[in-house]
Amino acid sequence: MPTIHFYCPELDEEQKQEAIEGLTEVGSEVTGIDEDNFVVYLEERTPDMVGVGGQKLSDMLAAQEEQD
Amino acid sequence: MPTIHFYCPELDEEQKQEAIEGLTEVGSEVTGIDEDNFVVYLEERTPDMVGVGGQKLSDMLAAQEEQD
Amino acid sequence: MPTIHFYCPELDEEQKQEAIEGLTEVGSEVTGIDEDNFVVYLEERTPDMVGVGGQKLSDMLAAQEEQD
Amino acid sequence: MPTIHFYCPELDEEQKQEAIEGLTEVGSEVTGIDEDNFVVYLEERTPDMVGVGGQKLSDMLAAQEEQD
Amino acid sequence: MPTIHFYCPELDEEQKQEAIEGLTEVGSEVTGIDEDNFVVYLEERTPDMVGVGGQKLSDMLAAQEEQD
Amino acid sequence: MPTIHFYCPELDEEQKQEAIEGLTEVGSEVTGIDEDNFVVYLEERTPDMVGVGGQKLSDMLAAQEEQD
Repeated sequence: MPTIHFYCPELDEEQKQEAIEGLTEVGSEVTGIDEDNFVVYLEERTPDMVGVGGQKLSDMLAAQEEQD
Repeated sequence: MPTIHFYCPELDEEQKQEAIEGLTEVGSEVTGIDEDNFVVYLEERTPDMVGVGGQKLSDMLAAQEEQD
Repeated sequence: MPTIHFYCPELDEEQKQEAIEGLTEVGSEVTGIDEDNFVVYLEERTPDMVGVGGQKLSDMLAAQEEQD
Repeated sequence: MPTIHFYCPELDEEQKQEAIEGLTEVGSEVTGIDEDNFVVYLEERTPDMVGVGGQKLSDMLAAQEEQD
Repeated sequence: MPTIHFYCPELDEEQKQEAIEGLTEVGSEVTGIDEDNFVVYLEERTPDMVGVGGQKLSDMLAAQEEQD
Repeated sequence: MPTIHFYCPELDEEQKQEAIEGLTEVGSEVTGIDEDNFVVYLEERTPDMVGVGGQKLSDMLAAQEEQD
């Protein structure tokens, strides 16, 4: 313990390390628990697997791209 | 907030939108919270990654097919 | 299978039944899987346990009340 | 989206805000997604509800206290 | 890693230790990963927070008791 | 109910069945609930998606291999 599940978009290798490091650091600072005890799961989700406000995120992003 | 994680079989694009829309609508109606605040995660799982009653779902489905 | 985790505010008994019924119905319609197979977990969270946009939801709601 | 579930020990009000702020900040920096879109759930767990290495965390902490 | 989340009814202290020990043992045997690396979360849920087949588990249990 | 989410490395078909069977058996023994009611999700994660002590598990495993 503690454990962090981060539901996020797909990340490149550098971003993965940054996320793991940063989230662990914050968690350790807040709780006073040593970083060694932290496990982080990067729950990468593609936009077609996520709904925001009742809409597929992939559709929302596609519509945004058309406007830009 | 609120957030819905739906552990389900693989869905086609139409089913994904239907699930996101429907689950968001129910959640909003029950809580009175505006749909815009809802996030839905479609946690699609293939039957080999799921156990029901101590058995792999993929084995159960294969056995059912043999009987049909 | 399938399973739905609904992270939501505290609900009264009627709302709980409504949420369970409604989410199960949508899930069953979308997947074609019989309602009997559905499990729903109502993950009720008080606003002090939830952050939105980097702020405690309890603080946001308190600020809103002051404005009203 | 994105969403962070932080499984952690019980936190006081200040720690809750610190965790929400810090985790959101890291998530936003890594993904480039605006902080407004982030939801954080503080999944506070008492040590009797957590096992580490096959042992109840509450028992481990009690044993440690005896040694100190 | 690895981590096990066990969504279960309320457990007494003995059952908690049994669950943590047993689940960790199985996980370690299957993966070959040392037990020390395992974290188990006992996600105890009261029956009013769980739906099965579209019904509150608390209502189902109450109905069963009436029949017995 | 009950439901078990097992966050684990990638498993072969035999390991999957072993995990499902073993976890279900332990859960049933501890709770007294019939195995038929148990659902197990094998949440297989590759080491690049997992952080331990602030480091990517994939990097840790690579460093270990170099040492061996």
